[in-house]
Amino acid sequence: MGTRITVTLTIYLTLVLASGCAPPRETGNGDGEIVTAVRSVLETQQAAWNRGDIDGFMDGYDRAGTTVFVSGDELTRGWQTVLDRYKQRYKNREDMGTLAFSELTIQAVDPDLAIADGRWQLIRVGDRPHGRFTLLFQRTNGNWRIIHDTTTSATP
Amino acid sequence: MGTRITVTLTIYLTLVLASGCAPPRETGNGDGEIVTAVRSVLETQQAAWNRGDIDGFMDGYDRAGTTVFVSGDELTRGWQTVLDRYKQRYKNREDMGTLAFSELTIQAVDPDLAIADGRWQLIRVGDRPHGRFTLLFQRTNGNWRIIHDTTTSATP
Repeated sequence: MGTRITVTLTIYLTLVLASGCAPPRETGNGDGEIVTAVRSVLETQQAAWNRGDIDGFMDGYDRAGTTVFVSGDELTRGWQTVLDRYKQRYKNREDMGTLAFSELTIQAVDPDLAIADGRWQLIRVGDRPHGRFTLLFQRTNGNWRIIHDTTTSATP
Repeated sequence: MGTRITVTLTIYLTLVLASGCAPPRETGNGDGEIVTAVRSVLETQQAAWNRGDIDGFMDGYDRAGTTVFVSGDELTRGWQTVLDRYKQRYKNREDMGTLAFSELTIQAVDPDLAIADGRWQLIRVGDRPHGRFTLLFQRTNGNWRIIHDTTTSATP
């Protein structure tokens, strides 16, 4: 009886140590699901922006004081501060224009973290600003949200 | 005897499950070491740049085909390609100028991943370009190296 318990628990322990506790460098089979989930957040953001809904767009970001947005010479920290910055810069539908994301590359870096790279472009009456972005997504309570956004601008 | 083994292994299992297998969101006491190690890589990069040693500077990046550098409208993939890009853009000491990193914020996001945000500035004879950067560091074989760099430029 004692031996049987030991063997059973040893097998269990080995499985636990071999799977759950390995350094989470390779996320394996779950990558497809992660890519789909992250892509879906970005599609929702794009749709929200294109109906003039900055609050809906901001739902893609983690609602935390640690959320970071970097662009140009500026680093903005905190979900609310990032929202305020967007509302300050895009006061109406004309400022917002039509947003398109393209050339997305999404890579899981651990079971709850992923990096998304891509291009952004705004089509507006007067100009077509564009550039690239790098987003760090984290899964929190089952939801993938942006915890860090660094956005570059192409030289006009 | 059977009971004793069961109790011992249950305690061990509980410890393993409670510590090693918890999602590695908080890295705890190791953060100080990670910050020191990452900061050291950046100081080494800055020193290499300022003696005109682009190869030494590139030692801060993970020597892998997956290493990514993003700036402006451009994404460069692969350590060698990133090196080629630097050598193409900075042909001599005058192009390289004097590099300073400042306002560093380093945050561990799992035991083997950290994000570093900061400012960069080049002081050159003709100009002083500057901006921000976001670096994703990964620990591989005990060494912290940049696996993803997104660098912004301030509008002149």
